[in-house]
Amino acid sequence: MSKTFPGWEQLSSALLADVLDGLGHRHSALPPCVRPLKPGYKICGPAATLACMPVAADPARPYEAEMACIDQLKPGELLVVGTAGDRSCALWGELLSTSARVRGAVGVVMDGLTRDASRILDMDFPVWAAGFSPLDSRGRLDGVAHGVPVRLGDCVVRPGDWVFADIDGVACVPADLADEAFRRAFDKNRGENRVRDELAKGRPLREVFAEYGIL
Amino acid sequence: MSKTFPGWEQLSSALLADVLDGLGHRHSALPPCVRPLKPGYKICGPAATLACMPVAADPARPYEAEMACIDQLKPGELLVVGTAGDRSCALWGELLSTSARVRGAVGVVMDGLTRDASRILDMDFPVWAAGFSPLDSRGRLDGVAHGVPVRLGDCVVRPGDWVFADIDGVACVPADLADEAFRRAFDKNRGENRVRDELAKGRPLREVFAEYGIL
Amino acid sequence: MSKTFPGWEQLSSALLADVLDGLGHRHSALPPCVRPLKPGYKICGPAATLACMPVAADPARPYEAEMACIDQLKPGELLVVGTAGDRSCALWGELLSTSARVRGAVGVVMDGLTRDASRILDMDFPVWAAGFSPLDSRGRLDGVAHGVPVRLGDCVVRPGDWVFADIDGVACVPADLADEAFRRAFDKNRGENRVRDELAKGRPLREVFAEYGIL
Amino acid sequence: MSKTFPGWEQLSSALLADVLDGLGHRHSALPPCVRPLKPGYKICGPAATLACMPVAADPARPYEAEMACIDQLKPGELLVVGTAGDRSCALWGELLSTSARVRGAVGVVMDGLTRDASRILDMDFPVWAAGFSPLDSRGRLDGVAHGVPVRLGDCVVRPGDWVFADIDGVACVPADLADEAFRRAFDKNRGENRVRDELAKGRPLREVFAEYGIL
Amino acid sequence: MSKTFPGWEQLSSALLADVLDGLGHRHSALPPCVRPLKPGYKICGPAATLACMPVAADPARPYEAEMACIDQLKPGELLVVGTAGDRSCALWGELLSTSARVRGAVGVVMDGLTRDASRILDMDFPVWAAGFSPLDSRGRLDGVAHGVPVRLGDCVVRPGDWVFADIDGVACVPADLADEAFRRAFDKNRGENRVRDELAKGRPLREVFAEYGIL
Amino acid sequence: MSKTFPGWEQLSSALLADVLDGLGHRHSALPPCVRPLKPGYKICGPAATLACMPVAADPARPYEAEMACIDQLKPGELLVVGTAGDRSCALWGELLSTSARVRGAVGVVMDGLTRDASRILDMDFPVWAAGFSPLDSRGRLDGVAHGVPVRLGDCVVRPGDWVFADIDGVACVPADLADEAFRRAFDKNRGENRVRDELAKGRPLREVFAEYGIL
Repeated sequence: MSKTFPGWEQLSSALLADVLDGLGHRHSALPPCVRPLKPGYKICGPAATLACMPVAADPARPYEAEMACIDQLKPGELLVVGTAGDRSCALWGELLSTSARVRGAVGVVMDGLTRDASRILDMDFPVWAAGFSPLDSRGRLDGVAHGVPVRLGDCVVRPGDWVFADIDGVACVPADLADEAFRRAFDKNRGENRVRDELAKGRPLREVFAEYGIL
Repeated sequence: MSKTFPGWEQLSSALLADVLDGLGHRHSALPPCVRPLKPGYKICGPAATLACMPVAADPARPYEAEMACIDQLKPGELLVVGTAGDRSCALWGELLSTSARVRGAVGVVMDGLTRDASRILDMDFPVWAAGFSPLDSRGRLDGVAHGVPVRLGDCVVRPGDWVFADIDGVACVPADLADEAFRRAFDKNRGENRVRDELAKGRPLREVFAEYGIL
Repeated sequence: MSKTFPGWEQLSSALLADVLDGLGHRHSALPPCVRPLKPGYKICGPAATLACMPVAADPARPYEAEMACIDQLKPGELLVVGTAGDRSCALWGELLSTSARVRGAVGVVMDGLTRDASRILDMDFPVWAAGFSPLDSRGRLDGVAHGVPVRLGDCVVRPGDWVFADIDGVACVPADLADEAFRRAFDKNRGENRVRDELAKGRPLREVFAEYGIL
Repeated sequence: MSKTFPGWEQLSSALLADVLDGLGHRHSALPPCVRPLKPGYKICGPAATLACMPVAADPARPYEAEMACIDQLKPGELLVVGTAGDRSCALWGELLSTSARVRGAVGVVMDGLTRDASRILDMDFPVWAAGFSPLDSRGRLDGVAHGVPVRLGDCVVRPGDWVFADIDGVACVPADLADEAFRRAFDKNRGENRVRDELAKGRPLREVFAEYGIL
Repeated sequence: MSKTFPGWEQLSSALLADVLDGLGHRHSALPPCVRPLKPGYKICGPAATLACMPVAADPARPYEAEMACIDQLKPGELLVVGTAGDRSCALWGELLSTSARVRGAVGVVMDGLTRDASRILDMDFPVWAAGFSPLDSRGRLDGVAHGVPVRLGDCVVRPGDWVFADIDGVACVPADLADEAFRRAFDKNRGENRVRDELAKGRPLREVFAEYGIL
Repeated sequence: MSKTFPGWEQLSSALLADVLDGLGHRHSALPPCVRPLKPGYKICGPAATLACMPVAADPARPYEAEMACIDQLKPGELLVVGTAGDRSCALWGELLSTSARVRGAVGVVMDGLTRDASRILDMDFPVWAAGFSPLDSRGRLDGVAHGVPVRLGDCVVRPGDWVFADIDGVACVPADLADEAFRRAFDKNRGENRVRDELAKGRPLREVFAEYGIL
């Protein structure tokens, strides 16, 4: 998965969501509860996926799927973890962050909770999560499969889809739309720069929108 | 699993929850969203379990775990399905009910949704669910494992635990407490009958509670 | 509290809420989660109140406030129980119903859960609750005070306010507005009967509303 | 809109949702909170739509959009009301039901609350709602437009789409898929009848599913 | 709307809410989900209002009401946007911020989501919102009217009401109470300073509260 | 309560929750909505407790239990306030913080809202809360008792239990487990340091977990 989209740092999850709307793909964002540990984080990469489910007892082989998933992460990948919105414990933590980083993962996004936030921030490893808990996942939430499609809210993420996470949240670009979507996003970015300049001069929104069709 | 508790029909989920409180087991009830299709339903049996998780795509072998679980149900068993509180689709329906009944299952309780409610009511097969949806589970929610402990809310159910479901909800009696719990529940039932008679005569609650220690 | 409003059975919680809107009192309804055990129940009476709070341990004197409150209920009173929306257990049950009924209470409304629903229905004692649980309140939820104002959602109920509960929910009429509110409700009831007749003939809503000012 | 689908009463919202899944249209169901006033209700018809929003004051012309919408209902239409999930008051009631029925509407579905449930049940007018409130909509929730697309949860309903409501909830069939969807639903219904017979004989789910591909 | 309350920067939303309580106006705060993009933001001004609702399709004239509203903002105004608590998309963003700022608006508060948070923070334009989403409002949420009363949670805001937003949230002062409320808030501020000094010396709360009547 | 656990600053709520899991005490964390005002706060101390409940009117003696509780705080204590998850107002504020600090309390954790956040941050007094509101508690939420067990979510806190609050949330160590739990937590901390070093070298998670049994 050596492809990249040079200059992606100029883009945003909002720009990608906009062009995906234009391509007819409207469920492109993870739920708004998924927030970055630090507002300035911005990452982009092809998705590796992990699916988790609530459990009621220590599994025979604890952390099996989590470990298999993370041990196989490839440089540049962005890990997406689906937890069915679990709030009972923290799926993610410092040791998993350490291991994910050493494999070259650019970050992780999940619809569950994290912990060890203080050390993760010290490592400066970008994590998006739905909140925090001191409680370990063992006997509460367990990895079930990795490398499979996951659903977070109404957004489906498949391995290899391009994920873009920033302060506004997380947008997911289906792999087969990625080339077109990134191309259009760079275009739209240029258009928005012009619109911003016009508006900053005091021209009315209606007039500028009529002229550029961008808002 | 040929054991039964003769006369269980006189008991209630509330009586069992009370004696489990007394035995120090206080997380004995499924979440209150789990409701019977018909108020009069009352079932009791050892648990068979099925764990499900949200999915994002048609699995390679759809319904695999559900079918394996139901095809192995034994007479008298009560199926408990954990869905992580899914509301995206109906895990249960008429055809699964038909198959569960023909194997002798006494009913099913789940923290997700059901469908085909009209036909299930016609069959008079007792189902407790968190609501209804016309949407099939395929590509939305999938069985992951059966015969494993499941957690519904903060209540853990293990295969072989005794489950009692009625209009007040669902109580789960851990297998190793079952003999003692049912014995105490029959006792408490007799005590409550006496208390009810005293109260119906108009004696103050305080006086009757002081005398019987039951409320 | 011997006052009554003869003919109240023709009225509804909706009619009373409407006239209270007209009197500038717009927070007149308990939260919509408060539902009758049986759709046909309809009760009206001056409020007796009980305030409860979540607890974490068996109180020194369990059920103390509940028992004091119920032992002092007067004929015709309608018990309103505030639980801060508790869903952890059932505050109400059969034995409390037995005692409340024997004192002449007309029914109970609460924003928490009930149990023993089967026997309460057998007694035909009108209960409105937010749901059901097998779990007892002991060590989970405890009465704190009775005869004090209680708040359920954004509706305040003071002892002596008039409460009207039916299939649409529960309206609360402040004591000092009661005479005027009931008088206007009887009037509005007559007006609605005329409007219904006009509409049933097929006259347009706009026309009828323009004429009668009632919808 | 004189088209009908003769024999629709044999179908169900679940059958239609299934065939829509097969046609790639997966957001076909209203949120599960939308429930029938009576479990036995089953209606089907082309949608008329009304969009509402929360308001903070008596509008200049109260009920304007509601009245315009209902006064224009055509025989056979099924009214779909979007309220943005409002729980602050009842949008629907007896007088609107009276007027909708007299115009020939087959029923109404909404993601908000209703009132006058007792009288609506007496009229036997089929209503699906998210619950009940005694509070009128005036100054709380107001019609904004009718005859426009509405969104209830993640399901979009456009005027003229076919809506099917029963005990399992509400499925919405986009107008341009309706012929194909109903044709397939009748087919699938026949298939399910065969599957049910096989399962009732005790054949394993896996075997029957392998043979018929239906579950 | 040239009036101002000089020295308002010393006040807080809490002080204003307190004096409004004392004036009998107790629904003075927006829901607690409405949070500032930066904790240090503090703004105050007369309200301009915009009401939005969920939509299901691209409107004929997208952004019409939003653009009309913002193009008419006057210097010093504070824009209040009601979205019925929408979480499906971002109503607000960078370009609207640019335009609002150029017209002299002091900031915006809304019960929906924003996006472009990074650039809005760069502009240092004060925004209070219920969260973030990359998704545009087009075809999801639409402006319906501006210059009308709006309701956010149980707080009504009318055009011209005085809105005060800070780290604790947002208080809304009805226009006709504004003079009295601000006067009392300045007074209470002085009283609290004295109380704080007494408490910091170690005097018991009970003693100080008995003396000053402020807590 | 002069006992301390020297070196506790090296620990974390996560470490304590882990060792409590190992001791069979799995409900050790306050709900994840309880968040620190500043991410860097970390406090530890024996619990003083205050129980609150929603009220509907100015109590006869406002703030009575709050004042009694705070006036009796002892140096080193950590105040735990249970509000039944109230979101209607702010229980905590600057003046209470001033008084708690002057008595030597190390901080406060609560499942309700706070206000005066700006001044509390200026004082640098550590507060964990579920959010913010400008509204005072008077007539909305009232202290009922102090020095009693309180329940926040499914976590029970008794006076004298050891509470540890940091960026990941709040862990509560029952008094009778405290010596053992802190001893184990210091041990586990050393183990995690070794595991982190191994992982940072690039060794697979599975291998390191197999060797150390820590993740």
